[in-house]
Amino acid sequence: MHETRLDTARIRAARQMIDPMFLDTPLYPCEALEPVLGCAVSVKLETANPVRSFKARGTELLASLLAGDGARAAVCASAGNLGQALAWSGRRRGLDVTVVASRFAPAAKLDRIRALGARLELVDGDFDLARERAAAIARHDGIRLVEDSLDIETCEGAATIGLELARAARPFDAVLIALGGGALATGVGHVLKALAPGVEVICVQPLGAPAMTLSWRERRVVTTDSTDTIADGVAGRCPIPAVLDDLLQVADDAVLVEEASITTGMRLLLDHAGLVVEPSAALGIAAILEDRDRFAGRHVVTIVCGGNVDVDAYHRWVGAATV
Amino acid sequence: MHETRLDTARIRAARQMIDPMFLDTPLYPCEALEPVLGCAVSVKLETANPVRSFKARGTELLASLLAGDGARAAVCASAGNLGQALAWSGRRRGLDVTVVASRFAPAAKLDRIRALGARLELVDGDFDLARERAAAIARHDGIRLVEDSLDIETCEGAATIGLELARAARPFDAVLIALGGGALATGVGHVLKALAPGVEVICVQPLGAPAMTLSWRERRVVTTDSTDTIADGVAGRCPIPAVLDDLLQVADDAVLVEEASITTGMRLLLDHAGLVVEPSAALGIAAILEDRDRFAGRHVVTIVCGGNVDVDAYHRWVGAATV
Repeated sequence: MHETRLDTARIRAARQMIDPMFLDTPLYPCEALEPVLGCAVSVKLETANPVRSFKARGTELLASLLAGDGARAAVCASAGNLGQALAWSGRRRGLDVTVVASRFAPAAKLDRIRALGARLELVDGDFDLARERAAAIARHDGIRLVEDSLDIETCEGAATIGLELARAARPFDAVLIALGGGALATGVGHVLKALAPGVEVICVQPLGAPAMTLSWRERRVVTTDSTDTIADGVAGRCPIPAVLDDLLQVADDAVLVEEASITTGMRLLLDHAGLVVEPSAALGIAAILEDRDRFAGRHVVTIVCGGNVDVDAYHRWVGAATV
Repeated sequence: MHETRLDTARIRAARQMIDPMFLDTPLYPCEALEPVLGCAVSVKLETANPVRSFKARGTELLASLLAGDGARAAVCASAGNLGQALAWSGRRRGLDVTVVASRFAPAAKLDRIRALGARLELVDGDFDLARERAAAIARHDGIRLVEDSLDIETCEGAATIGLELARAARPFDAVLIALGGGALATGVGHVLKALAPGVEVICVQPLGAPAMTLSWRERRVVTTDSTDTIADGVAGRCPIPAVLDDLLQVADDAVLVEEASITTGMRLLLDHAGLVVEPSAALGIAAILEDRDRFAGRHVVTIVCGGNVDVDAYHRWVGAATV
């Protein structure tokens, strides 16, 4: 038994509160990647929606519940994708949304948050500093603080991806999940352990932002002093204890990958699958590149979790990547 | 009444014969394009599948029927996407597939046709020469000739996109459809005229390959001596009379666009929507760019019909585009 904070029945019910535009996303084999990677790779594509990431699955659920409770406002810290998604979901439901982000976050993400009508406050530091500031705003203004990965809605929203994977027409052996705060990994992992226990659940994090992976390995919270990765979407220093507890129940492995593998993964997804992805979304391909023997001959699903990139940085990364 | 060769009930039934992987594709607003284009644009994304184009909707239908009839082989001429789709659909059903294509077709398309196990024969000429050669092979070998846009399955397969558009949650004013042989335009047009008659059906073709548009305008088949466009997927010289007849029933307009607008459209879809598209799939955006007043303030759907590009050519095109 895998006891987590998540509930499969509640996750099924969550589908009803999420705009269908974010559900039942494409899942398909990219055969052109197979000769390059030595294994069959299917993509679960979470970028073909108005916010270009999976995060709206969680914010749709959150905003529905908040609006149902008569809330008027909410605040979150975000590396960029959660804020964009909360802005989108909140706008539709008349919620005033404030997003706190690092001023070092990709301009494309910050621009979209503003364009969607949210109030954006920038901090001169990283995501974990933004979390502190968002909490202070929530206390001061008396409004709901949305905490990614800690708030169960963010995990259970992401977990709806797991429901879709569990009923895939073609069976698969392993799923590669970008690991940041842990909402995606615990959500998808919870559902797969319940409904498709034969699937290996592998979390992937950059070597430059390894806090949650180190915590998973040591079975206790390990923080780091800093992060150093282009994968801005998963760069946290301070894992949340309750999320780590869940992750310990559902993850079969957590691996760390190098920056060069991430850029090569981005390049491969562009050249062989025609997909523009942000660094976090290439972590799965990076993991295959670094351990081909492990995946040889298997059928692996990788969740392409986001596609919000600054165009110039993107071209620099994929241009520099070597295959 | 719009009497075409197509039948809406048959199109609904066709869905049952198409692998669900190719159905119910994403349809979503790309708000980041709105300030650039002056109108609300939603994308119907047909590239997130194993063959990266809409063509498998038709070949799934064709191959199902062929296999059901006990056929063992089929041959088609293709600009690249139909051949890839027929190879994919045929492989699953034990059909030997032969594809005849121009040796000037994008290498990426030809490589994928081979990789999918089809026999590929190249002609030293354009798509219309490939059509003649495919017909000769069919006669000689006594096998089924699949003719894009003429064979009703190719139109009715494409028409399943129309069913999905007709039940869009958010109403739209116009749909922009790449016009080549006419399967996509007559298919989607037929369904929308039947189920959503308020939607303006606008076909878009390159100035460098205008045969079908000129034919539509003159209400008789007009052929051209040559084509000159990067939009390889829609470059034909010899419209098929029966397809023109259908198009005359369902198209509200057919417009021609310049090459520079096509590359700018590709660039805009990359920069503002994160989508890698082939030139044919940018025709809709090109049409908006060339006639902003026509679309100002309206909600327009553009079908992103394919994403198979040669990487080097793609970078050259989007690098040269000016916004």
